[in-house]
Amino acid sequence: MNTELDFDKMGGLVPAVVQDLSTGEVLMVGFMNEEAFQKTVETGFATFYSRSRKKLWLKGESSGHRLVVKDIATDCDQDALLVKVDAIGPGVCHNGYESCFYRSLKDGQWTETEKQTYDPNAVYGGSK
Amino acid sequence: MNTELDFDKMGGLVPAVVQDLSTGEVLMVGFMNEEAFQKTVETGFATFYSRSRKKLWLKGESSGHRLVVKDIATDCDQDALLVKVDAIGPGVCHNGYESCFYRSLKDGQWTETEKQTYDPNAVYGGSK
Repeated sequence: MNTELDFDKMGGLVPAVVQDLSTGEVLMVGFMNEEAFQKTVETGFATFYSRSRKKLWLKGESSGHRLVVKDIATDCDQDALLVKVDAIGPGVCHNGYESCFYRSLKDGQWTETEKQTYDPNAVYGGSK
Repeated sequence: MNTELDFDKMGGLVPAVVQDLSTGEVLMVGFMNEEAFQKTVETGFATFYSRSRKKLWLKGESSGHRLVVKDIATDCDQDALLVKVDAIGPGVCHNGYESCFYRSLKDGQWTETEKQTYDPNAVYGGSK
């Protein structure tokens, strides 16, 4: 499959925005290299490239909180992806929240706007 | 304001996902450096750093299609932003669509899933 995505602008990666299909909530931003993108398409589970671990990362491989891909869109410049998912489990954030975007700017401070939906220590055993 | 954002992971930039506050639609992904972020906060209009033009870019400065910022959230690692906006005008995409994500993957091909909402040549005069 020639996807014609532009991986060059970011050293082999494109940002992938993950949105909950049913609620419209933006859950996280990950990065995909071409292999992660192909894995995502082939398996139907969102797979990213971990910049810190420098390897492919099947979201939910340790927590079980996989992301079932329902739609993948690209933008005008084909250098970003929007992945609509059904999220398995109580949340995608390793800090215990449904969305990684659980803090908003209020009076110059990042302020928690969501409640934790699970205990991250129980799921991740204290590590990511 | 010490925003404690992590600009280092991407050479001084963070990806900024723009979401329509009222519809929940993801409109575009831009990038902000620290100055663009500060401008966005100070002015209330989404301002990005253009990687191609290598300068600050007030979204809508040529088209008039500005993005009025209603909320700015950051993620767990503080290396991405989610900017909820009221979008002025018929669309954010310079190709004439409401959202830049107007194509989805269908049977291995990027396929248009949205209709144009305006004539980009009338707005941009044939250039971006």
